[in-house]
Amino acid sequence: MTMNRKKMLLVAASIILNLVLIIHILYNNNSTTTTTWNPSWTSRAAEEAEEAASVSCSGHGRAYVDGLGVLNGNKPPCECNNCYTGDYCSFLLPDCHADANSGDPLFLEPFWMQAAEGSAVVESGWHRMSYHFHQDGSYVSAELERIIRKLHSVVGNAVTDNRFVIFGTGATQLVAASVHALSQTNASSSSSPTRLVSAIPYYNAYKEQTDFFNYANIKFEGDASAWRKSEHNDNLTQVIEIVTSPNNPDGKLKRAVLEGSNVKTIHDYAYYWPHFSPITHPADEDLSLFSLTKTTGHAGSRFGWALVKDEVVYERMKRYLTLSSMGVSRDTQLRALQLLKVVVGDGGEEIFHFSYETMKKRWEILNKILSASTRFSLETIQPEYCNYFKKRRDFTPAYAWVKCERLEDTNCYEIFGGAKIKGREGKVFGSEERFVRLSLIRTQDDFDQLTDLLKKLVSEEVVGGHST
Amino acid sequence: MTMNRKKMLLVAASIILNLVLIIHILYNNNSTTTTTWNPSWTSRAAEEAEEAASVSCSGHGRAYVDGLGVLNGNKPPCECNNCYTGDYCSFLLPDCHADANSGDPLFLEPFWMQAAEGSAVVESGWHRMSYHFHQDGSYVSAELERIIRKLHSVVGNAVTDNRFVIFGTGATQLVAASVHALSQTNASSSSSPTRLVSAIPYYNAYKEQTDFFNYANIKFEGDASAWRKSEHNDNLTQVIEIVTSPNNPDGKLKRAVLEGSNVKTIHDYAYYWPHFSPITHPADEDLSLFSLTKTTGHAGSRFGWALVKDEVVYERMKRYLTLSSMGVSRDTQLRALQLLKVVVGDGGEEIFHFSYETMKKRWEILNKILSASTRFSLETIQPEYCNYFKKRRDFTPAYAWVKCERLEDTNCYEIFGGAKIKGREGKVFGSEERFVRLSLIRTQDDFDQLTDLLKKLVSEEVVGGHST
Repeated sequence: MTMNRKKMLLVAASIILNLVLIIHILYNNNSTTTTTWNPSWTSRAAEEAEEAASVSCSGHGRAYVDGLGVLNGNKPPCECNNCYTGDYCSFLLPDCHADANSGDPLFLEPFWMQAAEGSAVVESGWHRMSYHFHQDGSYVSAELERIIRKLHSVVGNAVTDNRFVIFGTGATQLVAASVHALSQTNASSSSSPTRLVSAIPYYNAYKEQTDFFNYANIKFEGDASAWRKSEHNDNLTQVIEIVTSPNNPDGKLKRAVLEGSNVKTIHDYAYYWPHFSPITHPADEDLSLFSLTKTTGHAGSRFGWALVKDEVVYERMKRYLTLSSMGVSRDTQLRALQLLKVVVGDGGEEIFHFSYETMKKRWEILNKILSASTRFSLETIQPEYCNYFKKRRDFTPAYAWVKCERLEDTNCYEIFGGAKIKGREGKVFGSEERFVRLSLIRTQDDFDQLTDLLKKLVSEEVVGGHST
Repeated sequence: MTMNRKKMLLVAASIILNLVLIIHILYNNNSTTTTTWNPSWTSRAAEEAEEAASVSCSGHGRAYVDGLGVLNGNKPPCECNNCYTGDYCSFLLPDCHADANSGDPLFLEPFWMQAAEGSAVVESGWHRMSYHFHQDGSYVSAELERIIRKLHSVVGNAVTDNRFVIFGTGATQLVAASVHALSQTNASSSSSPTRLVSAIPYYNAYKEQTDFFNYANIKFEGDASAWRKSEHNDNLTQVIEIVTSPNNPDGKLKRAVLEGSNVKTIHDYAYYWPHFSPITHPADEDLSLFSLTKTTGHAGSRFGWALVKDEVVYERMKRYLTLSSMGVSRDTQLRALQLLKVVVGDGGEEIFHFSYETMKKRWEILNKILSASTRFSLETIQPEYCNYFKKRRDFTPAYAWVKCERLEDTNCYEIFGGAKIKGREGKVFGSEERFVRLSLIRTQDDFDQLTDLLKKLVSEEVVGGHST
């Protein structure tokens, strides 16, 4: 090649490279400005959240943005599941007790971790500072109310037409608000206090709450069936019956025991979701309670709602909410909205399939262990048709309501305690000490620890050779 | 220039251009990979939040991420300040009434809007799902407790040493919890209910709450001074006095009226911040209540805290919190932590200078208007030395406690109502109808509407020619 030709090739190559580089730069600028959104003021908070989420805790814990030490600028630490310890939750404590006490619904945590993008919430520093949503003084998010109605429509577990929706700081607050509201609407102003009853076994909080608050005109009486048969049941004394369905602790669908003009009923439907029960029909009662805790698993958020038919009762409950806490936190309402958007987005498919499959598997394992036992028994609940899954299905309750069958095993809670399993005593549910409630809705680690110790306990039956 | 020279210049230019372009590309790549963090799962939520924040509402409103219609995929609408309307809050309604009723602390909103980056919160879908923070069953964020103690130390408005900290869903819930707790600790189990008193004028909610809840052993009695002089004051009947300082509605620093072994005191320090009052000394009482509402302006979050000396009282209050709502929402606790981080970050300088200057200016305007009036009067509060600002300063209360001086103006609330100003009636504070409370802590629009109508009302005095 001649010198001139070489020079010409060099010039051509340089010019071509110029063009290539210019096109590259223009293309990248275009992409940046038209397809990538660049965060501004949300950046710091988002980065902190993603950093906390990325902390690895060996699958036995997780870190949170407000974990211990973050004020010192430290990376948030792993918060480990029961029995796990160490900086990365990688050490399993030997001889550790299984926690099967509280109904902490962490079994749903893996679902939300994989739904990270859809379920994240970003709250500005000036988000809803006011007491009120609207000029009319409402404490209630209209969009959240809408999505709750949509949720019930999608799942088919409650009628919301002709119902007022009221929010509470957990169904816990709504139990107190409804008991208070119903006790005020006595047609006859009796000097005798309104009696609160619930069929044994009942959720311990009903009694504890009523006894503790010590209202002048409300008294927790005890078992609804006992009241029905008692001499005090004079059809005049005002009575409020709380019906929990599915029931806590035994998981069965329940109906009211009492009826009459002097009887008012509160239906606690906290567990009436496909995770735990077939959806046999939409709840259609005067006062129905639901809880975010048992719906999405967000016990920490403290959010519940009631569907109320009677306007007078609704207004009284609203007044209760106003005077006790001026409504529910707007931060919580924002979060609940986002979580329920995820649930409702695909008609509940992903979450309910995840939750039902998880609970089904846990019950299969539990049933297998206990079927080998004559010392401990579980009542079987017959499968029913589920309108949500459109098939006949087993109940997969949140708790195992276990009975100690041996004569000498008078305190089942202590028997399990001796086997390093912490359950909840049967007597706090108004029932006998022969029963113990075991929570099945905690983390996988909790469930594995429970079943390991349970297997051991059951295996000792054969060895011990006791009679039932 | 010869052809050859031109060619050489062209080649040189092309090569230089190539070098420049290559350097540019390398620099940008470097910047992107080393200095820009790219969001992943927080992106959608962050984008939604920034989009809502960018909605322009003419300076007379704002849009929120959970505004009406967002479920339909609509951009969140402007939520307008009182009297403003239209899609962008640009229309001022003629003949509109000023809202000077509730203590909605939106005067702090501009501060948080400019503190956007520091105050944003990103919450993952699995953030704190559990009921409990720690294995011990606590409902309380340790970091939030730490920053509250730091806050009091920085402002110097309360002693936190040897104090338990308890959280509530607003100071509202803590008032109920403390009244309940103190009424239980009767040394003598008297059959007579505990009397709740507070010096007139008192915050209306104390009476409303106690009357509504109707506890068996607590009765709202009324004015503390009247009780002291009454025949029922037998030094045996258990009494709880609520002392609000600075007081709502009149803004003065107060002390307890009653003392004795049968008297317990709750100090409500909700307004004891540099926004409203000189910080004369750190509060050092047995039971002190504070509220995020009046500290940072976040009324919607529903968060308050109590500093409690006595462990028995603390345990009872904790039980109250457990049974009424199982603690305070973790979403709210996360938000409160972030907001207080911003406050404490610079020792409170930015927020308290902003808030004090705002309130000072509002009081200057209000005082100027009312100084021209003989029909309406305001009690002057003498300035005091402020340990926070390290100078003598005026009180700048949240409310104007206005008295109607004319004989015939027996109902001050109605007088102002006739002038299209909605205040809060003196009688709900246990006081006379000659008083009306006007809120000065709402948005700038609210304050401007109030002062415009007030000027008009005062100007009519001269025209009307009435005697005082």
